Amino acid sequence: MYFYKNEFVHKNDIHISPDDRGYYFGDGIYEVFRVYQGELYEASAHMQRLERTASEVRIQLPYTSDEIIVILNKLIQQNELIEGTVYLQITRGEAPRAHPFPIQAKPILLAYCSEVKRPLATIQNGIKAITEPDIRWLRCDLKTLNLLPNVLAKQAALDAGVQEVVLHRDGTVTECSASNIMIIKDAILYTHPANHLILHGITRAVVLRLAHALGIPVKDVAFTTEQLLQADEAFITGTTVEITPLIQIDGQAIGSGTPGPLTAKLQTEFERTFLK
Amino acid sequence: MYFYKNEFVHKNDIHISPDDRGYYFGDGIYEVFRVYQGELYEASAHMQRLERTASEVRIQLPYTSDEIIVILNKLIQQNELIEGTVYLQITRGEAPRAHPFPIQAKPILLAYCSEVKRPLATIQNGIKAITEPDIRWLRCDLKTLNLLPNVLAKQAALDAGVQEVVLHRDGTVTECSASNIMIIKDAILYTHPANHLILHGITRAVVLRLAHALGIPVKDVAFTTEQLLQADEAFITGTTVEITPLIQIDGQAIGSGTPGPLTAKLQTEFERTFLK
Repeated sequence: MYFYKNEFVHKNDIHISPDDRGYYFGDGIYEVFRVYQGELYEASAHMQRLERTASEVRIQLPYTSDEIIVILNKLIQQNELIEGTVYLQITRGEAPRAHPFPIQAKPILLAYCSEVKRPLATIQNGIKAITEPDIRWLRCDLKTLNLLPNVLAKQAALDAGVQEVVLHRDGTVTECSASNIMIIKDAILYTHPANHLILHGITRAVVLRLAHALGIPVKDVAFTTEQLLQADEAFITGTTVEITPLIQIDGQAIGSGTPGPLTAKLQTEFERTFLK
Repeated sequence: MYFYKNEFVHKNDIHISPDDRGYYFGDGIYEVFRVYQGELYEASAHMQRLERTASEVRIQLPYTSDEIIVILNKLIQQNELIEGTVYLQITRGEAPRAHPFPIQAKPILLAYCSEVKRPLATIQNGIKAITEPDIRWLRCDLKTLNLLPNVLAKQAALDAGVQEVVLHRDGTVTECSASNIMIIKDAILYTHPANHLILHGITRAVVLRLAHALGIPVKDVAFTTEQLLQADEAFITGTTVEITPLIQIDGQAIGSGTPGPLTAKLQTEFERTFLK
């Protein structure tokens, strides 16, 4: 079951109009929620980010945050979802194609859930990545449907035979195609500051809290691709990847070339906190 | 009548799947063709640009250029269109949401035409604009469905009570929300070079040819917002706006504050060439 235009419907009964501004302009926003044991993980943080993005791109949310949470929980129940994700997007509505905001259009919410297992193999063994220039727009803090550069970056990684791409602007690492990145050097955790150049990841914020609880010092300071290669440990964070070690970049091993000890400590704390 | 998935259909019979990658990622490309006297204007130039964009974002065109032209001309005939536009977009196809290119998906072409009169009042009297930072990605030469920054920029202009927005990167003018921009200073025409920071406008190229024919020297050299304000004349070019004078920027008059003589000369030559 999907939720679309105020109703729970079967996917095949969803008929999107070509006039939906999501289709012509990517004029919409989204969130991907994690579901563990049938429950939404960090729901209020996701809703706060959704509200902020909506406000910045000036899309009026068609429901309150509480109403949206009720809809998502109904989807989880109807689909008997235990472990997976809930995808939600809101477009600006339907109107004949023209750039200006349409006056009469009503925002359209679409949501559905999927069974997605935790990627245990890569969480344990780590992944490899390549580096690529970050050519995205300058509001990467907004979670919008304009995802073509992310699609192209992800595909470039797969074409290179690795799982991810580390994006950088003139050598300064920003994030990955759909996840944040952190490094550990001399027992200090470094992460790009949460400004307009990166998505303010929910799991990124969770990991910073966990690091604090574990007494790992955190610096919200950007690092270069060179510093990444010289790091003791590196990992990516995201709603579906959780904390996944990065063990190789551009063919070069990070640290020992295996997941590092502080990464493992953060993973253990993550599981202890969210996956009792 | 629209053209969608290999058929001529009524708009109401078009049911786009949520799995269409245009909807979740803006993963598609487009062109807007002008129709004068029932005929496509600069069709081969549009098709060349479409082919280049498709190649750069790695979407396989579902038809040859010649086949697409046949489809568009049938749309024009069926809709008895004399003066208007034809919109065409191609998305990467349908697949469950995931960033990588879907292996099985087939690209989907949608096209339709609209009656659009030449904007004679603004072509004659000119328009006003504001300046805004250009926050778009670094492949503005690709005509893709990731248009949210253009939408937001256009709306900012309307909110400011003017018709357009002149975008700049750190003070260097790039283009407008959906058109190119040129200035004339000391009888020389200046335009941003056709690199990755601007769309390579079809009408932009036409105007450069016309300038050459008229003996107006052209410099493919970027100019600053300051040089724009000090210009003798300024105008925007685009498929629907043709050559529209810019008479005021950020409340300050350009030149005399009325359309300039070389702009008028280019407009006359444009009409003589395309609108016999």
